[in-house]
Amino acid sequence: MGPDSSQDAQTISQVGEFGLIDRVTSGRAQSPGTALGPGDDAAVLSAPDGRVVASTDVLVEGVHFRFDWSTPHQVGRKAVAVNLSDINAMGAVPTGLLVGLACPPDTPVALVDELADGLWEEAQQLGIGLIGGDMVSSSSLTISITALGDLQGRAPVTRSGARPGDVVAVAGRLGWAAAGLAVLGRGFRSPVAVVGAHRVPEPPYGAGPAAATGGATSMVDTSDGLLADLGHIAEASGVAVDVDSARLGVPQRLTEVASALGSDARHWVLTGGEDQALIATFPAGSPLPAEFREIGAVLEGTGVTVDGSPYQGPAGWEHWR
Amino acid sequence: MGPDSSQDAQTISQVGEFGLIDRVTSGRAQSPGTALGPGDDAAVLSAPDGRVVASTDVLVEGVHFRFDWSTPHQVGRKAVAVNLSDINAMGAVPTGLLVGLACPPDTPVALVDELADGLWEEAQQLGIGLIGGDMVSSSSLTISITALGDLQGRAPVTRSGARPGDVVAVAGRLGWAAAGLAVLGRGFRSPVAVVGAHRVPEPPYGAGPAAATGGATSMVDTSDGLLADLGHIAEASGVAVDVDSARLGVPQRLTEVASALGSDARHWVLTGGEDQALIATFPAGSPLPAEFREIGAVLEGTGVTVDGSPYQGPAGWEHWR
Repeated sequence: MGPDSSQDAQTISQVGEFGLIDRVTSGRAQSPGTALGPGDDAAVLSAPDGRVVASTDVLVEGVHFRFDWSTPHQVGRKAVAVNLSDINAMGAVPTGLLVGLACPPDTPVALVDELADGLWEEAQQLGIGLIGGDMVSSSSLTISITALGDLQGRAPVTRSGARPGDVVAVAGRLGWAAAGLAVLGRGFRSPVAVVGAHRVPEPPYGAGPAAATGGATSMVDTSDGLLADLGHIAEASGVAVDVDSARLGVPQRLTEVASALGSDARHWVLTGGEDQALIATFPAGSPLPAEFREIGAVLEGTGVTVDGSPYQGPAGWEHWR
Repeated sequence: MGPDSSQDAQTISQVGEFGLIDRVTSGRAQSPGTALGPGDDAAVLSAPDGRVVASTDVLVEGVHFRFDWSTPHQVGRKAVAVNLSDINAMGAVPTGLLVGLACPPDTPVALVDELADGLWEEAQQLGIGLIGGDMVSSSSLTISITALGDLQGRAPVTRSGARPGDVVAVAGRLGWAAAGLAVLGRGFRSPVAVVGAHRVPEPPYGAGPAAATGGATSMVDTSDGLLADLGHIAEASGVAVDVDSARLGVPQRLTEVASALGSDARHWVLTGGEDQALIATFPAGSPLPAEFREIGAVLEGTGVTVDGSPYQGPAGWEHWR
């Protein structure tokens, strides 16, 4: 940023660790359940259920996000959304976040400010805050978030409870983030509807607790892609899952984008990750919560099929492979 | 590691994310309070107090540890110890850990196995386990840990409760990790007593809850160094703190090492970080818990002094500065 010493051109090495923590945390509203927020050795958070739900996700610049494709604000929102989605997928409500931020010493303070604004904006949609964290120096920018949640007396909905005969249902969007990633990968910046879905997912917050209340027998969020995440349910539950592609459908918008790129929209819907939709199974005949639509069935056996056959194509996304 | 495809020479990119998670988590003993361990969207942990204590620390290779100075096993133990120390410093007992591991695709599986063994060994000293986490690809090896804890009905001991007239006391070692770092920095590998203190701190586990039960008015762990961490108490409590160097003392072992290196052992004791000792304040005249020894007093005013005067020299360690 050159020798300019104005506020915007400052780097985090000039502000220092404690100055930066203060910028990220001071003057922000904490939830009523936050007994002790940032600034001490640890935070103290209410756990009214007597159990706490906890999940960690790590996002790395160049692997999970790129600042030429997303603003720091969007990256902040996404980092929180993927974590809160995990709490949602257990049937719990989020109660607080801890954020570990590792970044290069020459990172502009303005970038961290904007990232922090994004973290807080997504958190405060659900009435929660950043209750603690850590900031360290690193060669690569890494955001590590731990989300905590409360079950409000409900049993957690795991991946292992699906039973043959159950209905498979989904809440939220499928394939939109994958379409957005494909668009960005070709050097385009629109249509905004799909690019925005890649930049900031819109998890169906609230649908997780609704599914738990509605008798869901298993649940997972779509971070790896519909078929891969259904595979997690199938494996953990010891069942087979079949997707009915007629029920699944392909949104017209995705068909248009795929047509423009020479891609396959149905492939995005079946395998695209990072939409943070919810997949849940329910006993046959039980009414589905409002957010959910039926897309398939749980069967005896193993594995995941589409219209009764194995899907041909790469099924999901795994790190390092 | 060459073209050898034997088990030890495998890289994590060959094993894949899910294979690696399985290696790190399967077959390990979880605590009785772990209602749902690794393998689902989130973990579920008992929070019997109705509150949960939570802290995050991030350790980066080349910044917080070096594999030419510490084994992966030692790095794993240290990463857990610095986190559990934060729970200790609130007067709580740890209940579970979440680990976010970011590492380069060519990282040997054997290194991750050994690191995981270290994480588990330190955790299981306290009867807890790794209840969840995330593994991702990155250019730099980064370990992000969130520790959760339970207050067992006690009030958390914060940094802000010190009052003029209180006694300042410490539990655990001071300056040993700094001495070890100085030795390693000069290219030596011994004496083992100080090098080991840098590699794996020995937090006085249990002294935190004992301090809370014993009426501690404030508490912090020494991650930044005695004077810097006393500064956190002084600032948060709106008081001054004076250290009595005669009471503080300098261990003979550190004096010997400092003499050999031409260094100042007293400086290590006053400013060396990473020992994860506990500093607490207690009302004057109240008996100190067994682990604690008196080292100074809380006064009206601001700032930290040694024998009534400001300490001359760098006071602690801050990232990016």
